Amino acid sequence: MKMRNDCLPCIARGSLDAARLATEDEDLQRKVVKQVLKELITFDLNSPPPLMALVIARAVKEMTGVDDPYSRIKKKYNDFALELFPLLEKKAMDASFDTALRLCIAGNIIDFGTHARVGRQKVLDTIDEALVMEINGEGEAFEKACDNADNILWIADNAGEIVFDRLLLQKLDCRKITYVVRGGPAQNDATLEDAEYAGLTGMVKVIDTGAAIPGVILEYCSERFRKAYEKADMIIAKGQGNFETLDSLDSRIFFLFKAKCQVVADHAGCRLDDMVIKNSHQGFAGRKFGSCG
Amino acid sequence: MKMRNDCLPCIARGSLDAARLATEDEDLQRKVVKQVLKELITFDLNSPPPLMALVIARAVKEMTGVDDPYSRIKKKYNDFALELFPLLEKKAMDASFDTALRLCIAGNIIDFGTHARVGRQKVLDTIDEALVMEINGEGEAFEKACDNADNILWIADNAGEIVFDRLLLQKLDCRKITYVVRGGPAQNDATLEDAEYAGLTGMVKVIDTGAAIPGVILEYCSERFRKAYEKADMIIAKGQGNFETLDSLDSRIFFLFKAKCQVVADHAGCRLDDMVIKNSHQGFAGRKFGSCG
Repeated sequence: MKMRNDCLPCIARGSLDAARLATEDEDLQRKVVKQVLKELITFDLNSPPPLMALVIARAVKEMTGVDDPYSRIKKKYNDFALELFPLLEKKAMDASFDTALRLCIAGNIIDFGTHARVGRQKVLDTIDEALVMEINGEGEAFEKACDNADNILWIADNAGEIVFDRLLLQKLDCRKITYVVRGGPAQNDATLEDAEYAGLTGMVKVIDTGAAIPGVILEYCSERFRKAYEKADMIIAKGQGNFETLDSLDSRIFFLFKAKCQVVADHAGCRLDDMVIKNSHQGFAGRKFGSCG
Repeated sequence: MKMRNDCLPCIARGSLDAARLATEDEDLQRKVVKQVLKELITFDLNSPPPLMALVIARAVKEMTGVDDPYSRIKKKYNDFALELFPLLEKKAMDASFDTALRLCIAGNIIDFGTHARVGRQKVLDTIDEALVMEINGEGEAFEKACDNADNILWIADNAGEIVFDRLLLQKLDCRKITYVVRGGPAQNDATLEDAEYAGLTGMVKVIDTGAAIPGVILEYCSERFRKAYEKADMIIAKGQGNFETLDSLDSRIFFLFKAKCQVVADHAGCRLDDMVIKNSHQGFAGRKFGSCG
């Protein structure tokens, strides 16, 4: 997915959010934002928006020396999700694949790329809504594809959210799954450290993309990841960042996310706040925007 | 009031809003935003935020040829307010100076500088709330100052809103008032044309600032306005733009506005959405931010 005009002010805001997490010094925050704006002006706007997160991270590092401004937030939301886990597990255990799937998508609300503040109450409300709201997409087709696949690549998204993923992993045959996290700090996206902390490494094989990007852009990824990507016969891609970078015509991919920004909602052909399950071969309403760059 | 870091993404968004009003061409919109970002990076951030509206207007003009992107919106909200006027007048006639003052401040919700979309329902809701909500400031002190003054300079704000001003003007001795609008297109701020359309010219002497800025920066204003400004013994300044540019220690000024952005609310020492009546000599909580530039 290419940048849309709405991405420009959003990236400016995102750079300020990241700068604020790194430092309380307002002059330094301002330097970060100015540096990002400077690069944004000449940035190739045919690129997917998550690539700008690299620019923001670099500017934050350069101006503040902070390598991972989201580390405290990631720890906080991992802890919160782990604290919630017994309750979530009870909901998922009592019921069906569908419930686990819904909770797994609900976890995607823990996203600091689109919102500076999510908040515990928002997460709790999203869980409640997720159990009853209509899903934009086909849960049954997704379940069938999981059953039929021999080699599933699951590309995870955010810290905290990955704890929710455990619920669905418990319903699947983990032996055929490779679970993928980011190769380095990228917003509040989960890395190997988070996967271990959240108890994922004990249940499934975990690798990383090799890139500190909140999405998957193959040319930035490691050889190891690219090979795993090629070999998979089904790909589960969670979150907006993966959707924004991988929305190709690759029919192996199922995108699972909460639509938290209008640009992504338009591109996916859904409404803001929808819970989305999309398979590439179904096409996207948003393709009409393909030429906006 | 100087720029705060939050102003940077907000200006980026404002430039896109203005560009969208001027053209549907997404490439041109993007050029406007990029041009504004380019100038923002080197802009003197000790300036009050409304000065950036000049930069945005110039970029829109340069890229799209459109001189007044807000003209349609201004007409629409003048019409809407005129349509509401008999109802508003009834509310104000039946009651006190206080009611007219409240409705006059409520009209400040019609602001396209802080929000891209206000909407009719938002205006109607604001009117209802305004009649009952607590005012941050002293309505009685304001009324007393109006009674005691011989020469009042009333600096107006937005199209549509100026119709609401008529309610309070009806409670005052209009012979001692000079009503001031902007000297040219500046967001959705009222100009002479709007003042005439909204029926202000029939009840009070109207002049303009001589500057197409959504606020008052004296060095940009005409000699005529500056003289009127000097001579006044009381100044009524409506809206955030006037507050952002005139928040000096000039104790003649009473600021009347709805706080619609957090930066302004912080500076005025009030909450978001508050109805504010502030006189400079009362001081502002926000003075602590004076050194942020």
